Amino acid sequence: MVESVRRVCAVLVDRANYGRMHPVMRAIQADPDLDLLTVCAGTMLLERFGQAEKIVSADGFKIDGRVFLEVEGSIPATMAKSIGLGVIEFSTEFQRLQPDMVLLIGDRYEALAAAIAAAYMNIPLAHIQGGEVSGSIDESARHAITKFAHLHFPSTKRSAEFITRMGERPDTVFNVGCPSGDYIRSLDTSLPADLFAKTGVGGPLSADNPFFLVIYHPVTTHFGSERQQIQQLIDALAELAQPTLWIWPNIDAGADDISKALRTYREHNRADWLHLVKNLDPITFQKCLKKTICAIGNSSSFIRDSTFSGTPVVLVGARQTGREHGGNLIAVPPQKRSIMDAIRSQVTHGRYPISNLYGDGEASMRMIEKIKSFQPYRQKMLHYVSEN
Amino acid sequence: MVESVRRVCAVLVDRANYGRMHPVMRAIQADPDLDLLTVCAGTMLLERFGQAEKIVSADGFKIDGRVFLEVEGSIPATMAKSIGLGVIEFSTEFQRLQPDMVLLIGDRYEALAAAIAAAYMNIPLAHIQGGEVSGSIDESARHAITKFAHLHFPSTKRSAEFITRMGERPDTVFNVGCPSGDYIRSLDTSLPADLFAKTGVGGPLSADNPFFLVIYHPVTTHFGSERQQIQQLIDALAELAQPTLWIWPNIDAGADDISKALRTYREHNRADWLHLVKNLDPITFQKCLKKTICAIGNSSSFIRDSTFSGTPVVLVGARQTGREHGGNLIAVPPQKRSIMDAIRSQVTHGRYPISNLYGDGEASMRMIEKIKSFQPYRQKMLHYVSEN
Amino acid sequence: MVESVRRVCAVLVDRANYGRMHPVMRAIQADPDLDLLTVCAGTMLLERFGQAEKIVSADGFKIDGRVFLEVEGSIPATMAKSIGLGVIEFSTEFQRLQPDMVLLIGDRYEALAAAIAAAYMNIPLAHIQGGEVSGSIDESARHAITKFAHLHFPSTKRSAEFITRMGERPDTVFNVGCPSGDYIRSLDTSLPADLFAKTGVGGPLSADNPFFLVIYHPVTTHFGSERQQIQQLIDALAELAQPTLWIWPNIDAGADDISKALRTYREHNRADWLHLVKNLDPITFQKCLKKTICAIGNSSSFIRDSTFSGTPVVLVGARQTGREHGGNLIAVPPQKRSIMDAIRSQVTHGRYPISNLYGDGEASMRMIEKIKSFQPYRQKMLHYVSEN
Amino acid sequence: MVESVRRVCAVLVDRANYGRMHPVMRAIQADPDLDLLTVCAGTMLLERFGQAEKIVSADGFKIDGRVFLEVEGSIPATMAKSIGLGVIEFSTEFQRLQPDMVLLIGDRYEALAAAIAAAYMNIPLAHIQGGEVSGSIDESARHAITKFAHLHFPSTKRSAEFITRMGERPDTVFNVGCPSGDYIRSLDTSLPADLFAKTGVGGPLSADNPFFLVIYHPVTTHFGSERQQIQQLIDALAELAQPTLWIWPNIDAGADDISKALRTYREHNRADWLHLVKNLDPITFQKCLKKTICAIGNSSSFIRDSTFSGTPVVLVGARQTGREHGGNLIAVPPQKRSIMDAIRSQVTHGRYPISNLYGDGEASMRMIEKIKSFQPYRQKMLHYVSEN
Repeated sequence: MVESVRRVCAVLVDRANYGRMHPVMRAIQADPDLDLLTVCAGTMLLERFGQAEKIVSADGFKIDGRVFLEVEGSIPATMAKSIGLGVIEFSTEFQRLQPDMVLLIGDRYEALAAAIAAAYMNIPLAHIQGGEVSGSIDESARHAITKFAHLHFPSTKRSAEFITRMGERPDTVFNVGCPSGDYIRSLDTSLPADLFAKTGVGGPLSADNPFFLVIYHPVTTHFGSERQQIQQLIDALAELAQPTLWIWPNIDAGADDISKALRTYREHNRADWLHLVKNLDPITFQKCLKKTICAIGNSSSFIRDSTFSGTPVVLVGARQTGREHGGNLIAVPPQKRSIMDAIRSQVTHGRYPISNLYGDGEASMRMIEKIKSFQPYRQKMLHYVSEN
Repeated sequence: MVESVRRVCAVLVDRANYGRMHPVMRAIQADPDLDLLTVCAGTMLLERFGQAEKIVSADGFKIDGRVFLEVEGSIPATMAKSIGLGVIEFSTEFQRLQPDMVLLIGDRYEALAAAIAAAYMNIPLAHIQGGEVSGSIDESARHAITKFAHLHFPSTKRSAEFITRMGERPDTVFNVGCPSGDYIRSLDTSLPADLFAKTGVGGPLSADNPFFLVIYHPVTTHFGSERQQIQQLIDALAELAQPTLWIWPNIDAGADDISKALRTYREHNRADWLHLVKNLDPITFQKCLKKTICAIGNSSSFIRDSTFSGTPVVLVGARQTGREHGGNLIAVPPQKRSIMDAIRSQVTHGRYPISNLYGDGEASMRMIEKIKSFQPYRQKMLHYVSEN
Repeated sequence: MVESVRRVCAVLVDRANYGRMHPVMRAIQADPDLDLLTVCAGTMLLERFGQAEKIVSADGFKIDGRVFLEVEGSIPATMAKSIGLGVIEFSTEFQRLQPDMVLLIGDRYEALAAAIAAAYMNIPLAHIQGGEVSGSIDESARHAITKFAHLHFPSTKRSAEFITRMGERPDTVFNVGCPSGDYIRSLDTSLPADLFAKTGVGGPLSADNPFFLVIYHPVTTHFGSERQQIQQLIDALAELAQPTLWIWPNIDAGADDISKALRTYREHNRADWLHLVKNLDPITFQKCLKKTICAIGNSSSFIRDSTFSGTPVVLVGARQTGREHGGNLIAVPPQKRSIMDAIRSQVTHGRYPISNLYGDGEASMRMIEKIKSFQPYRQKMLHYVSEN
Repeated sequence: MVESVRRVCAVLVDRANYGRMHPVMRAIQADPDLDLLTVCAGTMLLERFGQAEKIVSADGFKIDGRVFLEVEGSIPATMAKSIGLGVIEFSTEFQRLQPDMVLLIGDRYEALAAAIAAAYMNIPLAHIQGGEVSGSIDESARHAITKFAHLHFPSTKRSAEFITRMGERPDTVFNVGCPSGDYIRSLDTSLPADLFAKTGVGGPLSADNPFFLVIYHPVTTHFGSERQQIQQLIDALAELAQPTLWIWPNIDAGADDISKALRTYREHNRADWLHLVKNLDPITFQKCLKKTICAIGNSSSFIRDSTFSGTPVVLVGARQTGREHGGNLIAVPPQKRSIMDAIRSQVTHGRYPISNLYGDGEASMRMIEKIKSFQPYRQKMLHYVSEN
């Protein structure tokens, strides 16, 4: 069907992107009809976020382009400026690499920048994880990316339906499931005993004993209230004082306030319960998520990936409001008492049955087939018109 | 209802924007509960596009910000880079002006840049003319802007319905009609006899005698085929050799090829029939559109504004495919014979009855009321979720 | 001489800038013939550098513009990109503010960005501290700024001579002295006893007891060797284990490695001797510099400002090679033993006599007079031509 | 001496750059110890300036990078923004290409952008044509580039001396002559009879009959007075009404006013004497300069290259004030009468003897030797210090 080898450019904008994208990248690499190009961008390149590009390289992927785009400030205006710089830089890379398709994931502003560059350059755009619903500005960015995309790979039946209802051509929308489901189910949970002796800062932590796993990102649409929210979460966990693996937040506006609260807490308290890391490679992260007695915070991974492992989750605050989730999740407002109660309840309950809500483990293969048989087109049109 | 005066920032990114926006700006100016801020951007500031900002100033509007953003090149990659620079610059202006609302119109990349800056800065965004359908990358940009907007002012019933179907909250979508309809119906068609002696280049043209009106923009999704298309149009009009008022194209990727074809034609032909202008003020433009015996090309104005005046229109090519239009329009492919036949047919037919498809002349007032009573919110959410 | 009030735009790009510029700003403010405009840029706006703009505001200066320009990465390429973004943003601010003169200081890349914007916009540029000699890329930037400047305010006789030798018109070069000299001599050294209880992190520190003061910035032209250098310095100070006030480094390429070394040290060691602060207001900083028993590192302040107070200084590494200094300084390579020996020697020696090398305390007044009597010109020309 | 092949990145920012650089590029290409990388930037990529990159490709050079950087506006602020965008984009290209040396020429803002990117990225910078003196902002930019450069290739003895006097290390400054001298002397002046039938617009022009050659660029430091100056020049030439080959101006702030004056003149006058071209390939251009009976305007080429051919030149206005020139040149203010008188005088005089002021034709070879034996260093230092 494909006449020549199709060059697919995978765009990775943060550590979580790579966690979901790598099975697809592997499958592209293995397919003789496809060539993989990899562009790393945003926090993947930054030391203070663990420089996840090194993991990509270590996994054997050649990095064909690097896009530095983060303008410092951690306020909404600099977040916007980062998008602007991102569009400028992604168009330079795409102009040079001349891919036949750009493949990206999710809803981050860095991904929006890449989507705009690709769409205005008439490069077909494939989008993973469209159609989901959440809080933060990501909600708008995700759907805007959908409006620029030519090929849609949602992770759930509902997301696929929502994309079609938004006016996308049904023959371009494929519910393939989330590619992280392709490898999480089969992962064992063995981890080196001394893992956290070598990684991160803070109190001692052994992966062999029960621990909490925490990620808490800012909610950009609530910019200005981060400090108060994170304090409630810290207070709750400090009172519980169980060994806790905490991953630093992403770079969204407001993240500086969250980081500062964590640093301030550590400065003024003996906090042996708290172990902080910048980043984990995707496999190690998923093992930790499988192994933790409770995942706490507002990472989309806790909603999505936890369905593959049945991990008990306490979802805190508004960042994921509206996102589909399994039965393994208790949602609470960012208040100390509610958080503590929910954690205790989840620890008591223990592991939940796994679910197929976010796919059955064949996402990558399905995507590869659709990417290969995709008939390139440039001009999109609201599908309602053909219906009318 | 409004506690303090609400600062509304009107963003104007090209001459056509201002033609539609100025009745709304006038109404905002006149309302004691609202303050008008005006930001001029893109080609409005450029001499080679007639520097429309001067018309804005001459009309008595204070210009509070200027955004230079066009990166030269006239190729898709530089169009993308212009968006990037635009996001950077608009966020600087919004950070400084601190508006309570950003108001913008349409689907151009410059407007997309402003929409992204506003949305990521948590400034409520009101969008005029969402929900329409067309060709070119504008189709995608228009709907992406919808996904960032908090308040929607579509121009037709169908557009309003499409916006709601795309998942926007119905209580934020108001079919107000197109604001250009607020003044076009009542315009007389008197024009200074020597108007074109002082404006533009080329053959003599009298507004008192029958003339054609032509605008032809590139179709970015067909980038690379402009030269061939424009040549067919020039050839058709050269053969007809009627006095023709032609307005230079916008700045989209491919526009250089269109301009070059026009310049080359003029260089090698005695072309007394052809009079070229960079720009007309909105009133003069609308009078010309009312007066022309046939409007030819692919400007959205020919579809929309012509319904208010019953002007016969020959729509050429794919740029407006899908857009709602009145009965006054014949659509043809960019081929010399088809164009000539359609023009002759329209000239024979003469004026059509006017239509209310794009509104009844009360758009501005309706918008003002909605802007004043708008309850600001930041967090958007796909409306389907509440339905489910 | 000046017909109307002259608008002078002071550009501040980091905490050190403000420490030197504020007496001049005060003098401009007080002069009826001059209006002060203040633009804060770069790290002055960033929380992780102590957001020095707050000190500027608290001191009663209105901030007329803010320029976010730092692109994250801490590598040479992102440092370059920050300059690019800076030129874009400074030209926006200058276009809006329309100053009659831009006044800036020193050799940082952010200042270079402002200088380029001003010069290409035909705004007369006044430059403080040109003609000095140092290591790092600052050496090149400083002289490049000189080549764009129309009015020169060097701090020493040698610097003035060097500027003239570089081909600047002698009637535009004025050895006024360093404006920090205008207030440092007369400062007392009283500090609140609990100052460091409220500011910074790390071990307890009392300003009443003897302490070391340390600042260590990267040397961009040695990019890649920071980690090794800083480790030698940390090891030296750890072995001495005297109470130490350490100010985090600036944002130059390589700074992340320095910060990381400090954080790693703190994580793995009980380091009661080490107290870290992001920033001090200029008065407090100068009091600390007056009070410390030894200043250690490579800040230009240790060379320049220490001459006004006779503070013993140990200069480490190549960053200031070539800069004029008083007799109060011992220069050593970045090696533990050399550093320790030099510190011990300086502590034994104690305070040095103060010197007039960097001025006699009248710099601000001299500048004001020259700014007021300056005859604006745009066209520069290498002075050698007129000599020949 | 060189251990491995040295990668030299030639940066070309406009048509004139390439005219001077191509003999050097040829020599690099031919040398087994050197690899040539070519980056085309700025107006070289733009259709409206004749897209000189096509000539580079046609001459057999691979283009390794393209930098779009021109922000539209033709005012000083957009010129500054273009520099900013240029620094961002050049650092992307240099980061990717990792050259061992960047080689650039002259004084344009695009070259300044490249110089800054290279210097901050610790890439050794070689600069051709430093140390010259002229008007416009180029005067400042040229010397600023010198302050960033590690290796200097001035074209005249005086320029070499000036660079050294500016504090550059004498062992890095080599008076090699201008590389355009390497091929101009030996060029014949044969041109296709129908050359101008196929190139450019306007009246007929035969290269076989006597003609004037005109280039007139804006003087940025006189921004605002272009219209008046160019009008004087047009009026002078219109009165003489000799066949004239006129090359459109560069992109500097003010160029739009010059172009507009030319277009307006053509629109309102029968101007058979005037033939306009966007660009000529370097060989054709030099043949025209050799052949013209008088070169008129303010291009630096008229000063420099005319010394190799003895062409009579009328230099108009302040743009080249201070630049060394041969005896073949009459300088006049931009006034109609003065221009006419000088042209008549030059035509009467006829060809002048050729001169070695700008070199003896061995520039490329000398540069290659110095590039090959160059000992890379990063840290510059004002040479006066070692003298003192």
